[in-house]
Formats: sequence, structure tokens, C-alpha cells
Amino acid sequence: MRVVTFTSDFGPFDEFVGICHAVIARIAPGVRVIDLTHGILPGPDSVRAGAAALAQSVPYSPPDAVHLAVVDPGVGTERRGVVLTTGVGALLVGPDNGLLLWAADALGGVIEAFELAEGRYRLEPVSSTFHGRDVFAPAAGHLAMGIDPSRFGRPVGDLVRLPAPRVSVSEGLLECDVLRRDWFGNLQLAARGIDLEAAGIRGRVRVEAGDRHIDARVVRTFGDLEQGELGVLVDSAGHVALSVNGGNASDRLAAPGTLRILGGD
Amino acid sequence: MRVVTFTSDFGPFDEFVGICHAVIARIAPGVRVIDLTHGILPGPDSVRAGAAALAQSVPYSPPDAVHLAVVDPGVGTERRGVVLTTGVGALLVGPDNGLLLWAADALGGVIEAFELAEGRYRLEPVSSTFHGRDVFAPAAGHLAMGIDPSRFGRPVGDLVRLPAPRVSVSEGLLECDVLRRDWFGNLQLAARGIDLEAAGIRGRVRVEAGDRHIDARVVRTFGDLEQGELGVLVDSAGHVALSVNGGNASDRLAAPGTLRILGGD
Amino acid sequence: MRVVTFTSDFGPFDEFVGICHAVIARIAPGVRVIDLTHGILPGPDSVRAGAAALAQSVPYSPPDAVHLAVVDPGVGTERRGVVLTTGVGALLVGPDNGLLLWAADALGGVIEAFELAEGRYRLEPVSSTFHGRDVFAPAAGHLAMGIDPSRFGRPVGDLVRLPAPRVSVSEGLLECDVLRRDWFGNLQLAARGIDLEAAGIRGRVRVEAGDRHIDARVVRTFGDLEQGELGVLVDSAGHVALSVNGGNASDRLAAPGTLRILGGD
Repeated sequence: MRVVTFTSDFGPFDEFVGICHAVIARIAPGVRVIDLTHGILPGPDSVRAGAAALAQSVPYSPPDAVHLAVVDPGVGTERRGVVLTTGVGALLVGPDNGLLLWAADALGGVIEAFELAEGRYRLEPVSSTFHGRDVFAPAAGHLAMGIDPSRFGRPVGDLVRLPAPRVSVSEGLLECDVLRRDWFGNLQLAARGIDLEAAGIRGRVRVEAGDRHIDARVVRTFGDLEQGELGVLVDSAGHVALSVNGGNASDRLAAPGTLRILGGD
Repeated sequence: MRVVTFTSDFGPFDEFVGICHAVIARIAPGVRVIDLTHGILPGPDSVRAGAAALAQSVPYSPPDAVHLAVVDPGVGTERRGVVLTTGVGALLVGPDNGLLLWAADALGGVIEAFELAEGRYRLEPVSSTFHGRDVFAPAAGHLAMGIDPSRFGRPVGDLVRLPAPRVSVSEGLLECDVLRRDWFGNLQLAARGIDLEAAGIRGRVRVEAGDRHIDARVVRTFGDLEQGELGVLVDSAGHVALSVNGGNASDRLAAPGTLRILGGD
Repeated sequence: MRVVTFTSDFGPFDEFVGICHAVIARIAPGVRVIDLTHGILPGPDSVRAGAAALAQSVPYSPPDAVHLAVVDPGVGTERRGVVLTTGVGALLVGPDNGLLLWAADALGGVIEAFELAEGRYRLEPVSSTFHGRDVFAPAAGHLAMGIDPSRFGRPVGDLVRLPAPRVSVSEGLLECDVLRRDWFGNLQLAARGIDLEAAGIRGRVRVEAGDRHIDARVVRTFGDLEQGELGVLVDSAGHVALSVNGGNASDRLAAPGTLRILGGD
């Protein structure tokens, strides 16, 4: 039986994650569910943050996994639920709001997409606020049990895709969007380690966000930072990240949506 | 083998939940444990909050599950531990402080109740502060392995029941207790969607808590709220809930124990 | 197949724990992973806090478990990764920074130790910041599948051991290190219940930390405390602990590293 992974913004405190696990266990008694993360922060960029976390996690999962993802500010509106088949054989289940497509890119691309419409694979009546329980978790359970994706509804051709985050590289200057911030204020940028290298940015640098200018240092690992120092490093997903040793980089930079890293040595 | 679900106020940070999982795995190696929630907030109303979370979660669980629940401010005092059998066949294990009975109501009612007294189904010596580890988790493990509830101790006839929360409905006025608040300050009320309808409350309303009066709006889903707006909606458990878009409803209303919703259009 | 337990300072919010679960599931599809805790607080004493949490949890786990632990401020430096075999048959996997040895003491002592060096049991290329994913979780998965510890690398003889925390007992005076504090500000001390007894400390006492002197009371369980009162009790691991009912003991005592409990009655 396929493993199910589960990603959401339900947080680690409430029973929402647990109820989805229970729903899956009713449908697929022997299935294994791996929680990737439920700590996607609410807010205007939550879908992008969820898409990034999912895309960075799926390469480490069993190749035939069913990836259930629910970051769904549009719950109760007209946005569709979908299941996607991918090049490597993994399945992705969740809202059609862009959440799933970066992960699909990391899994060999979307092969087919179907709407989640079939009533027998839902908990009826479907609530207006908890499609995780009523639509997405049941779909993941049935997919783990071997129900074919085409049984859930009609093919979908026009999947919603998030705009690509901006990354601009020139000699001594990296300008890019913040991809996400975590609960501790660390920032993951859209730029990758290779962009940092291409810009020739190393050693002591300056980070600009709006009208704030902060001295920082490019380091290899967290342990290289002084207490309170702002560090620029390549994180375990290959992205450029900003972190303050013992502090909050997002607060220090006034929760930037985009920023610039300049200079070096 | 029966699935075990697990609900507590141990929080997501410490090893208390993990130790209970380990204890269960020693007794019942192949059993599956589903964490419903461990985020019940401490405080004078924690048992009520736990009872509500449990009652709202068990209907989605496998019907023959063993539901382990530990919200237990009276640990180390004379309060008993109990196992309850229910109409649908599920079992409930935890302290006899009212925590289990609303869930039992949702599972077809209590059929039999037994005290957890038998030493061979505990970890001896039993500590005075962690009956989750020493009494309740072992009981859940043995129950999952098929030990009959009657083997744990003598029948109990006078189970502790929480007072029913107050709900009062009249034309244009809903007055009721707060059932629980979550980590983000959202409030779940004792009233249900049907009460809101019966009171004819819709559109723009006023919420009163003590001497605070706040304008609010009855909406269908979170996405309908403006930033900072107080919303009244029917949540996924069918209860009336109060939520501030991007804010904390409990703080805004000064952590009310009871409140009134008035008017509409 | 052996059960895997998992302890870290990754926190309950990010995908780091989930990615390690996914990595283990790829290597050992049927294995069961029990999260003991991921809430070890970052900071200068995080390894000691992790070592204490692990040592207090392993006695409740299946005796042949593989205990994976990652509290690793030295990630990316020269510190080694190791697997330890123990007297009771359990295995311990993690960084060689002292994290594992108190748990080994609780499991019958270290029998053999091997470096984690063999490339085929890692995810290559190994990142400089996430050895949990690239080194330790893969090792745990392969160990659960039955790979012999000696296959991972050369024997290690000079394991890093943390200094023993200081505990000094005299008539009416207990002086000792703080072993760890939790997210709610509770403090677990290096002293045990037996030390409290030996010092004859009971009833009303005084707690001194630096230049702060606070009245406290030795109680049997949390429920015995008044709102805001500082309590001294023996916790479920047998250690002396300090807790403020409805408050934060660590803040009240200015985050002490060591403290004194005086008098009684």
C-alpha cells in the first residue's frame, strides 16, 4: 500500500491534523501517514510557503507516495480540489491553488490531473471550512487503497500555478523574493546557492530590505555566527537563507517580501 | 488489532506524549496510535476543552478504536481512572473527571464502566504526577491487545459528568458559554449553528462579553472576513465560533467565559 | 523489525522531522517511528537538555529499539557521528557530542561504538547543515533493517561525555545545576528526590538563584500549588523540579544555571 504524506497549515496544537489521520485510518486501515509539516504560517503568502515546503520534502519520500497537502485559504469558495499524477509515480492531492505544482515539478512533472468531485470518495455533507477532513483526507485514503485517480472526477487542464518568485543576479548583487519565513523568524529566499556564487557574494556583505541596511556575513553553517549576528547561508534545501544567531531575522529586517544582498569582502 | 487514539494537554514540545507512545509500543508492538490533539490549553476549563475536542473527533475515528484521553488536573488525588465501553463498540480510557462522557455520548452512550485498579496493567510504582505513562497508556495498550475491560477493576456506577454548558436562545439574542479557546485565540461556543438560525441572527451583529461590545459579522467561512474583523461562523464541528481575521478573538473580548450575540441586519 | 525512536531540537513547526521520517520510510518501509520529543530548546545547554530527555525516555521504550537523537550544534564541524550498542540490546544513533551517553547509561552501558562513515548508508552529497536527514536518519533506517553496527565504520574508543551536573547536598541545603528548562519555563534540576530527602528539605523553603531569593513550597503534585506560587516537587523522572502555577519559573528565577534550595519548615 502507498505511504501517505501530509502537509498543512493546521498547526501543532489543534485536533485538525488528528481528525484527518482518523479519517484516513477508517478508509485505509493499514496505511502509514507521515506528517511532513503542519507549521506553514497563515498569511497572504501561506500557499507559496506551503508549496516551497512540499517541493523541498517530496524528493526524500517514497517515490510512490500519496502526498496530501492542505494550505487552503480559499476553502469554501469555488476553487477546485484535484489529484495529480506525476512522472515518478507519486500522487499529489489538495486544492488547485498552486500549492501542488512546485512539488509536481520535483516529481517529474504533472502527467494527469483530475477534479475531486465524486461524492462516494468524500464525507458528505461537505463542510464549508474543513475540506481537509471532508474532501482531501478521504481522497488520500482511497488513493492509498488503490482507487484510480481518474475515478474522482473529470480531467482538469488549466491548473492554477503560482507566479515564479523573482531572483535577479548581477556582479556583487543578489535581489530576490523571500520564499518563506519560519516560526523562529528565519527567512528562506527564492535564490539558490548557485546564485550566490554567480553574484560573487561572500564574506562580509550588506542586506537591504526596504530602508533597512544590515551588515551580515556569508557563513557555511549556523555555528559560525556570533550571538546576534545576521548570517547568510545555503540551507539544506539548497536555498539562500537568512538567520540571526539567537534572534529573529524576519523582525530585524521588518518582515520583507523582497530583499537585496550586496557586496562581499 | 484496535487502533488507539490519543488526546491530552501535554503540548507539542515535551517528551510526555512520546513516552506514552513508547509505553504502548512495548505492550502492543503492532498497534497504531493516532494523535488527535495534545494542545488542550491548561487552565480551569481544560477538562471541558478536552471533553469538547474529544467528542468532536471520535465520530471520525474507526468505530472500534480505543480512545486514550489525559487531561487530568487531579492527577495524584483520589479521582479514579476508568475504562468505558460504548454503544458503537469503541472504548474510552482516562480519568473519571468528565473528560470522557461527551465523547461517550457521541459513541452511542456508556454501556459499562470499570475502574483502572489492577496492578498488572499498570507501570508500578505509579508516580504521583504522570498517570498518562503509568496508568492510562498501559491500559490503552492492553485494551488494544484484547484484554477485556472488566479485567481492570470493579464496575463503576457514578461517573463524574461535567455540567452542561449554558445556551439560551431567543429572538435576536444568543447567550451562551464559551466551550473552548485555541492557541490562536479563536473561541468555540456551546451554541450550535441551529441555535444561531433559531435566534434569527445573521449579517451584522454585536457581540457582548462583560462590558465589552464589539461589532461583528456572521460569515460562512474565514475568507469572508476583512483584516481585523470579528467574525461569527459555524465551524466544522457544527458549533458557533468567533474568530478575528489576523487577530485574537479571546483577547479582544477579554477571555470571556460566557457571551451574548445580538441582532442582525 | 526494531522500532525507531526519534529525539531532536527541530521543533514542532518545520518539515525537518517529517523529512527524516520520509527518509527512514524509504529505507525501511515497514518500520515504526516513535517521536519522543522534538522540543529540546536551542541554546548553550541544548545537548545537555537533549541528553536528559533521552535518558529519561529510553527506559520506557521497547528494549531493542533504535534510538535516533539529533541535537547537534556542531553540525558541519569535525564532530563525528556514531552508533552505540548497549547492554540491554538497544542501539543509539547520533552525534558524538555527549547526547547519547546518559541514555546509554540507562540502557546497561555502551558495549561497542562505531563511527558513521560508510558512504552507502548516507544520502550523498551530505549537506553541511542537516545531518539528521543525510547521516543519522539513514543510519537509523538501515539499523532497523538489521544492518550490523560494525558495518558503518571503524570502532570509536574515546566518546565525548558531558560533564556530570553538580549536585551538593547538606543538612537543610541543596545546591545543584539546572538540567533543563521546558517551553513553559519549568526547571528540571540535576538533584533527585532522594537528595531532597537527604537534605531534609520539606514544607516552606527558599530558592536562591544568583541574587534572587524566592519563597517556595515543597509539594507532591502541581495541583497542590496556589496560583503564582513557586513549587518544588519530584517530577515523573525522579528529579527535583521547579514550577510556578500559572507562571514561568525560569523567568522568575532569571534563567538560572545553578541554584540553591534552603531550609524547610
